[in-house]
Amino acid sequence: MSLVIVGSLAFDTIETPTERKERIIGGSCSFSALAASYFTSPQIVAVIGDDFPQEFISLLNRRGVDTRGVTREAGKTFHWEGRYGDDPNQRTTIRTELNVFQDFKPRLLQDYAAADIVFLGNIDPELQEDIRRQAQKPRLVAMDTINLWINTKPEALVRVLKEVDIFFANDEEVRMITDELNLIKAGKKLLSMGPSLAVIKKGEHGALLVGEEFMFGVMAYPCETVIDPTGAGDSFAGAFLGYLDRAGSFRPEDFRRAAAYGSVLASFTIEDFSVERLKDISAQEIEDRLQALRGLVSF
Amino acid sequence: MSLVIVGSLAFDTIETPTERKERIIGGSCSFSALAASYFTSPQIVAVIGDDFPQEFISLLNRRGVDTRGVTREAGKTFHWEGRYGDDPNQRTTIRTELNVFQDFKPRLLQDYAAADIVFLGNIDPELQEDIRRQAQKPRLVAMDTINLWINTKPEALVRVLKEVDIFFANDEEVRMITDELNLIKAGKKLLSMGPSLAVIKKGEHGALLVGEEFMFGVMAYPCETVIDPTGAGDSFAGAFLGYLDRAGSFRPEDFRRAAAYGSVLASFTIEDFSVERLKDISAQEIEDRLQALRGLVSF
Repeated sequence: MSLVIVGSLAFDTIETPTERKERIIGGSCSFSALAASYFTSPQIVAVIGDDFPQEFISLLNRRGVDTRGVTREAGKTFHWEGRYGDDPNQRTTIRTELNVFQDFKPRLLQDYAAADIVFLGNIDPELQEDIRRQAQKPRLVAMDTINLWINTKPEALVRVLKEVDIFFANDEEVRMITDELNLIKAGKKLLSMGPSLAVIKKGEHGALLVGEEFMFGVMAYPCETVIDPTGAGDSFAGAFLGYLDRAGSFRPEDFRRAAAYGSVLASFTIEDFSVERLKDISAQEIEDRLQALRGLVSF
Repeated sequence: MSLVIVGSLAFDTIETPTERKERIIGGSCSFSALAASYFTSPQIVAVIGDDFPQEFISLLNRRGVDTRGVTREAGKTFHWEGRYGDDPNQRTTIRTELNVFQDFKPRLLQDYAAADIVFLGNIDPELQEDIRRQAQKPRLVAMDTINLWINTKPEALVRVLKEVDIFFANDEEVRMITDELNLIKAGKKLLSMGPSLAVIKKGEHGALLVGEEFMFGVMAYPCETVIDPTGAGDSFAGAFLGYLDRAGSFRPEDFRRAAAYGSVLASFTIEDFSVERLKDISAQEIEDRLQALRGLVSF
């Protein structure tokens, strides 16, 4: 199997109540590719400016990530600045500089286009649509989105939704798209819009999977130390799809296990800034948290 | 084993976006006693006015609830009025008329005082303290509270906390008491204040149990139809303690199972107004939901 991830490689500037970090590595693709790398060797498509460190690309390569789909353009890399309050679930965007991302026209390399799993990370839904068309005959297509696109490009978003199998979004976004407060109803409504599986991310409350014939709830792995929640959702999705790529099958039990790994990888991400904690996790650490997560919910 | 529940029998007036119900049966004791009645025969202590329907007392008796501890005083029954928004997790108190509850001095009948499990439902912590002293040698004491008491009687609340084994509260209340946003840290901080188990209720997100040597997370049983969430927390606590009374032991696995039953009983409560849905549930319906809840989280 093979997994292609399309998303952003970026700089983040993050302010928490106790610290400020300038221009650290961020972007949906950074988090999801690293999380996926613990299960498979993803191929990534992204754009960077001439200021993006080659060192991080090398790190991705060492972790088995195929970065041939990353193009470097003249100009600055996408830069997002955000602030977290005392409650790490509350975040405010201070500024978004698209820079080279502004004219990003993602292209799938010929061998990428044959991928079994395609992850359309959070980008303009018109670009997601374009990528979806470039994929030759994927066995599974997943997408993520944010409220920006729900507000500004709802028609394009609805068109992409029709063409994907798995939809990742957080609870607030799912409520916006479906105009339904009850998450179970909202999840079912999403299924009528295209996907066969809705993965509703709920931050500290974990995630809810609503499928055509099953429902699954996974807790967030309990973290006492939450340094920076940026990238938790992307890490969840990356581990989820990376696990599916390794498993090679898409049965309800595969989705359950995928979500559990998603929760585990997200728990590492939030324990430090940027991708720091995702750089080097042992297989044992991952399995230990998976077991702990199982113990957490067993009765 | 035996279980005593001290709390309120009351009238509620409830407004939801689609309906208004005047003076329906409410009160923490109504919900928790009915929920507990599916597992054991609780003894209750409460006060009612001369306007409270004997019919409901008879219903409690038919369900095996010992109501000898209920005193009827001249005057009106406690009356709470609340409104729910489109999001059933958001509620506003419109008015609270204490009425006969104002001068309530709960007394444990002689045989009640020998109870193995004592549940100090949400009432003035000074009364909880008094009841705690009346209990002769309970094997387990649990308490519930609300933000009103955290704000108005923090010292008394802290004193009661020292004398109980299990503390039930919702996430917001736990954060207020401990001044800690992270729920796991907050739960652990609570343990240093007295209880050996903190049960943090999270509404639609279920509940988190933080004990000295274990942690357990239970999902809310997924309900597509939420008519009136009033009493969900009380039902959770009632089923939790009713189950423990039946189980007769207080090991982590008993607490886990108790919380799962708590989630199940709460799910029935919210499917209709007042105690309607709690009046007559079959053992099979309860076991079916318990199995479904297990299926929901298994991976």
